[in-house]
Amino acid sequence: MAKIGPGIAGGNNRQTLTDADGEGRHLFKRWCEAAGLEMGLDEMGTMFARREGTEPDLPPVYVGSHLDTQPTGGKYDGVLGVLGGLEIVRSLNELGIKTKHPIVVTNWTNEEGARFAPAMMASGVFAGVLDQVDVYSHVDKDGKRFGEELERIGWKGTEKVGDRKIHAFFELHIEQGPILEDEGIDIGVVTHGQGLKWLQVTLTGKEAHTGSTPMPKRRNAGLGMARVIELVHEIAMDYQPDAVGAVGHMEVYPNSRNIIAGRTVFTIDIRSPEKEVLDAMDGRIREGIDTICEALDIKYKIDQVGHFDPVTFDPGCVKAVRDAAERLGYTHRNIVSGAGHDACWINRVAPTAMVMCPCVDGLSHNEAEEITKEWAAAGADVLFHAVVETAEI
Amino acid sequence: MAKIGPGIAGGNNRQTLTDADGEGRHLFKRWCEAAGLEMGLDEMGTMFARREGTEPDLPPVYVGSHLDTQPTGGKYDGVLGVLGGLEIVRSLNELGIKTKHPIVVTNWTNEEGARFAPAMMASGVFAGVLDQVDVYSHVDKDGKRFGEELERIGWKGTEKVGDRKIHAFFELHIEQGPILEDEGIDIGVVTHGQGLKWLQVTLTGKEAHTGSTPMPKRRNAGLGMARVIELVHEIAMDYQPDAVGAVGHMEVYPNSRNIIAGRTVFTIDIRSPEKEVLDAMDGRIREGIDTICEALDIKYKIDQVGHFDPVTFDPGCVKAVRDAAERLGYTHRNIVSGAGHDACWINRVAPTAMVMCPCVDGLSHNEAEEITKEWAAAGADVLFHAVVETAEI
Ligand SMILES: NC(=O)NCCC(=O)O
Ligand SMILES: NC(=O)NCCC(=O)O
Repeated sequence: MAKIGPGIAGGNNRQTLTDADGEGRHLFKRWCEAAGLEMGLDEMGTMFARREGTEPDLPPVYVGSHLDTQPTGGKYDGVLGVLGGLEIVRSLNELGIKTKHPIVVTNWTNEEGARFAPAMMASGVFAGVLDQVDVYSHVDKDGKRFGEELERIGWKGTEKVGDRKIHAFFELHIEQGPILEDEGIDIGVVTHGQGLKWLQVTLTGKEAHTGSTPMPKRRNAGLGMARVIELVHEIAMDYQPDAVGAVGHMEVYPNSRNIIAGRTVFTIDIRSPEKEVLDAMDGRIREGIDTICEALDIKYKIDQVGHFDPVTFDPGCVKAVRDAAERLGYTHRNIVSGAGHDACWINRVAPTAMVMCPCVDGLSHNEAEEITKEWAAAGADVLFHAVVETAEI
Repeated sequence: MAKIGPGIAGGNNRQTLTDADGEGRHLFKRWCEAAGLEMGLDEMGTMFARREGTEPDLPPVYVGSHLDTQPTGGKYDGVLGVLGGLEIVRSLNELGIKTKHPIVVTNWTNEEGARFAPAMMASGVFAGVLDQVDVYSHVDKDGKRFGEELERIGWKGTEKVGDRKIHAFFELHIEQGPILEDEGIDIGVVTHGQGLKWLQVTLTGKEAHTGSTPMPKRRNAGLGMARVIELVHEIAMDYQPDAVGAVGHMEVYPNSRNIIAGRTVFTIDIRSPEKEVLDAMDGRIREGIDTICEALDIKYKIDQVGHFDPVTFDPGCVKAVRDAAERLGYTHRNIVSGAGHDACWINRVAPTAMVMCPCVDGLSHNEAEEITKEWAAAGADVLFHAVVETAEI
């Protein structure tokens, strides 16, 4: 899979709804067909590869993650969870094991949210939290629409989104943070997920000459952006370790060395496992932006382009993960997911849990993202046992 | 001229060495030929349109400015000075006046420095301050080379750069600042020009996930950039009104909402009429960047991509401008140019002065840049008299 949409530094650039994404989907489909699975495809482009159960009318156990990547993404973020799911059915096939509940391996469209905000888009529509018509209209930096790109790459299905009954959903994912590796622990039993807000801010000042415009006459949207970035950092530092915050996306207009920026557009990313903390940060940031802009005589607009509340995963599914780790003799601990995952949305409509494995240096959203074979094997092993136990033999 | 390379808000995007620049040059050439001028073209693409003198062996009086614009530029920045020069020879033709010295109307290549740093590139090479081979290798944001683009648009001449003896050079330009308009004065007699430094800064941190990377583990090149922007502003505020400073150009990698920026590249623009102040700012900025980067555990590289010392224009030429304004009954005052101009470089190799006229709201490097016909006429009138007096009837 990592050969498709190669990055520039050993990782991947297989952003959602690009040609490379289409190619990756074809490969996954071929692998699924070779394993005897039947492929379903919904109107959001999410892929559902089904292994029949001995009691076909029982609702299936779902397992999977996403195949799309960041523009400078790693080889395992998302991919491990999809291929971990496929590996379960391959193993069941080899071992000749049948489960009562069907098992469906899933590739959710646009988990990353890098090309089109928000993240976890298809699972959000599936869970009824995002509106399909609305997200179809979302545009990337080149003005291309999500809905049209989905058709263009040929992966828009006809199945209505969210029309599936899910017995349970399990997602294996790399931690993307340093806790498991630092503590030398094999398995993270994910009990909670952080909440998130993405606030896209547009500042409007006035383009003017950097040389001949007196300092007091400036209405500098670039300086405004700089102050908001610092504000977000300071607020996150006040609440950490119970919060994080940063600005990773910034656009500057007209972006010329000798023009004071007339307009900047950037996205604030704040997160916390506590809803109250997230709301408090949001409030302080909005107040701070107002103060900053008044001082600089610039206008602002804030659009919330992504949001999810903190998540508590299903106790039964979490127990299935913990029991599997325990039974298999892996070291494990409870962990809160710092990143958002499709599991966070699916948890709203079906019992859900996640399995995490360490990644080197806690590094993710970086082409240098790395895991060991042992970590991956332990994660897939626990995933197998949790899924098969839930799907019942 | 403003019809060529139209902007999106009433101004112009006729950046240097684009097809639109080529088209503008053709139009200027046709106009020059219609006025009986003979066109020279040097290896930097600078255009020299000559009206013969009655004593052809005398060194010519040069007059002109530039036809290239910012990506979101006004219709007068530079253009007024080139067409003001052309208007002088048209008027001389109509009036049947001959001058002893030839008069050469000049369009200097890449004054703006927006597409290729530094600004005032061709006049800098002409004055021997910039190296032609070096600037040929400078690249724009798409990696295109200056030298190749100059050939591509068909305006690379064969004349060696700087091989002309200049009796005097005069440049008419809009003020690009608010002083003349605020004081209701017709003509700025430019006695000095501010010095400038462009420092291109590259910060290298580490790409990582905005959600799952703990705050203390971050090496955030975006936060570093924000702090440097604030630093530059504070230092400029300390020295203003004797200095200005801003960052108008910023690039962020990989520029994704949920990735902490691993690398940022941006250009600091600082200016002062006092060399000591410019040097002091430069020193404080370098120290500040060092401190900021140490605190954030990020690396930095600083490249000086533009520089000129403050300029004192030639007293004789300045007097010719002032005398012309006085004789013609225009209100006038001495003024320091806040922006850089080709005149600043040519002043190093020939007696030089500038005429400034007001612009609405002091606004420039903005498509809304505006002047009145009366202001333009007064400026051209003074330019005519200063040039013709120096070229001798
Ligand atoms: N797991 C992951 O990287 N998801 C992308 C959405 C987010 O930024 O948390
Ligand atoms: N006059 C003018 O805008 N020149 C561009 C170079 C500068 O930034 O001063």
